[in-house]
Amino acid sequence: MVKKYKRLRAGVATSLLSIAALGATFSLVSAEQTKAPATPKTAVRVETVASGLVNPWSVAVLPDGRHLVTERPGQLRIVAKDGTLSGAIAGVPAVAARNQGGLLDVVLAPDFAETNEIFLSYSEPRGDEGNGTAVMRAKLAFDDKGGGALQDAVVIFQQLPTVRSYHHFGCRLVFAPDGTLFVTLGDRASQMDEAQNPANHLGKIVRITRDGAPASANPKIQGWDPKVWSIGHRNVQGAVLDPATGELWTTEHGARGGDELNHPMAGKNYGWPVITWGIDYDGSRIGEGTTKDGLEQPVYYWNPSIGVSGLTIYSGDLFPAWKGNVLAGSLKGRHIDRLVLKDGVVVGHDQIEINDRVRDVRQAPDGSILVLTDSPQGRLLRLTAE
Amino acid sequence: MVKKYKRLRAGVATSLLSIAALGATFSLVSAEQTKAPATPKTAVRVETVASGLVNPWSVAVLPDGRHLVTERPGQLRIVAKDGTLSGAIAGVPAVAARNQGGLLDVVLAPDFAETNEIFLSYSEPRGDEGNGTAVMRAKLAFDDKGGGALQDAVVIFQQLPTVRSYHHFGCRLVFAPDGTLFVTLGDRASQMDEAQNPANHLGKIVRITRDGAPASANPKIQGWDPKVWSIGHRNVQGAVLDPATGELWTTEHGARGGDELNHPMAGKNYGWPVITWGIDYDGSRIGEGTTKDGLEQPVYYWNPSIGVSGLTIYSGDLFPAWKGNVLAGSLKGRHIDRLVLKDGVVVGHDQIEINDRVRDVRQAPDGSILVLTDSPQGRLLRLTAE
Repeated sequence: MVKKYKRLRAGVATSLLSIAALGATFSLVSAEQTKAPATPKTAVRVETVASGLVNPWSVAVLPDGRHLVTERPGQLRIVAKDGTLSGAIAGVPAVAARNQGGLLDVVLAPDFAETNEIFLSYSEPRGDEGNGTAVMRAKLAFDDKGGGALQDAVVIFQQLPTVRSYHHFGCRLVFAPDGTLFVTLGDRASQMDEAQNPANHLGKIVRITRDGAPASANPKIQGWDPKVWSIGHRNVQGAVLDPATGELWTTEHGARGGDELNHPMAGKNYGWPVITWGIDYDGSRIGEGTTKDGLEQPVYYWNPSIGVSGLTIYSGDLFPAWKGNVLAGSLKGRHIDRLVLKDGVVVGHDQIEINDRVRDVRQAPDGSILVLTDSPQGRLLRLTAE
Repeated sequence: MVKKYKRLRAGVATSLLSIAALGATFSLVSAEQTKAPATPKTAVRVETVASGLVNPWSVAVLPDGRHLVTERPGQLRIVAKDGTLSGAIAGVPAVAARNQGGLLDVVLAPDFAETNEIFLSYSEPRGDEGNGTAVMRAKLAFDDKGGGALQDAVVIFQQLPTVRSYHHFGCRLVFAPDGTLFVTLGDRASQMDEAQNPANHLGKIVRITRDGAPASANPKIQGWDPKVWSIGHRNVQGAVLDPATGELWTTEHGARGGDELNHPMAGKNYGWPVITWGIDYDGSRIGEGTTKDGLEQPVYYWNPSIGVSGLTIYSGDLFPAWKGNVLAGSLKGRHIDRLVLKDGVVVGHDQIEINDRVRDVRQAPDGSILVLTDSPQGRLLRLTAE
């Protein structure tokens, strides 16, 4: 299946509405859409750092060069340089490990070298009420077996309301330049209309301090929960700061044919489920169409969907041709989608084949790319230039 | 609560029947029961080899001194000497990891040094039909990350019938001196009456070849499945050969107050659920009483139950005072029960405190004792003499 893309500008978006409305079945791709020019392939060396990770979800690099990895069933481990693993780090919260739920993102505090603080997102079980995404802050104390334990753990955020669902938890964590934390949250699948309700945390991006208070940069809008940064999201599975601007970029799972790259701004509404470039899995239309006044368009969407996952914007020297490119993990496509951005629009694309479901994509301090593959026999890969 | 024990000989068993019948409530302990004399304490040094094991169930020692450990959720790992772990070893079968089910025992083939063969027992999911205990034989191929993969895997045994239950799977694996394999099987809780039916595998000990054929030493009894060695077991959770005799000893979970040490012989019936020293958890009597002609008595029973687990009979030089002693892991008691056997009866006892649920107890080649603790943050411990 040939992957196509839609380059969107505010000016052309409206003119496409009528075309999209006519497209009653699967493909929304029309003659007006432009194929992104393929960019030259870069030779990539793929090294397996560790294997036998159980559905790894997120990787962070420790100051000593070892890797901290979450496994969705609920374990946090340190990967030694020889590829051996620590035991499950003690003090990790209990998680609702089912379907899409479990232990999700891990990030180090920007001042980890002084504080040893890390942040974890996870599907928090809440008894008969259901569950919800939560964020924990804790100190990581190392032991002499290559592992460690979490100490002084504090749950700094709980997505509300609690929902009985095991889908669409989000949840990526990204530190903003001011030290506040973006938390990307899903609509919990069964509650998609709530993504338009700014008073709660379903289908939102929130921005909070390390203690869980609303970030001062958040929009002050009547009726909005003070923690909410942007609304109208389905299930944001990738998030990164553009190293050039310090601004947030995200990818989210759409419905069929509606995976999106967004550049979420404070107080904006990204449209789900009122507008979307995807259609429902039964082939029916969702919401009102693909565009609407007052609702933001994605920077880019994938049709067919690639099952977006971890996201990076490359800033290293190891792959000079990739500087400023978006690297978007693809679960379904088993590759990394490389998008060339120019003035905020996608002008080129390429695929880095991984031949396995890609769950996370991160740039390491040395400019290499870290990749996690999603399976019960998942791997931590390192991509370097040949 | 003072733990009491009952020393049983064929001669006294019958005289206790009337007393047991009178004991309508919790304790079956009577004035006729003798407390085992406490034996002198041995100073024990407890070293943590590895921590952060997720509900580890079984440990085996590889020829190079590393440890092979099963984790009940479904992972098999190699523990390096520095306490780091391998990734989950590839090729392990899918398991029904719920309640008591999951990946259970692991043993090396007696000729592992030549064949690299290992044997795994596990709760095998069987679709809508339910599940059952199964045994897999496979070659363990090592990789350069401290781990490996299973190859040429063959399922050599499937407990039948398939049952919808997540309890009482057994399942310990013990090689007999002739190279055949004992497999200890539970009654699946919901099917306890089937433990008396010799034609199936519920509540049985079976003995098979490495290819899964009936062992030639099995009893040839009309109506018995040719793989069955002994019947009338509830949930055998510990099994070991007496190194002095080459004969099988087992421990099994009884009902309340009925954990047993047995010395199972070919073609014998160990009584469950017709006779038992335990009572039901609601306080009611089970079966017909505690003894009956034609049904075997346990060598020893624990009242209250200690939640027996891994079993060893000590033959090393590191603890000379323990030679020939039974070391029975205790989940509930968080210790190892040390029983002094003389002429097949228990004449003394002691407890080695572990202060954690004990899941497995093995003697290492150097005479030290390996212990697994059962928790999501389980440990591999080594006990040596102080």
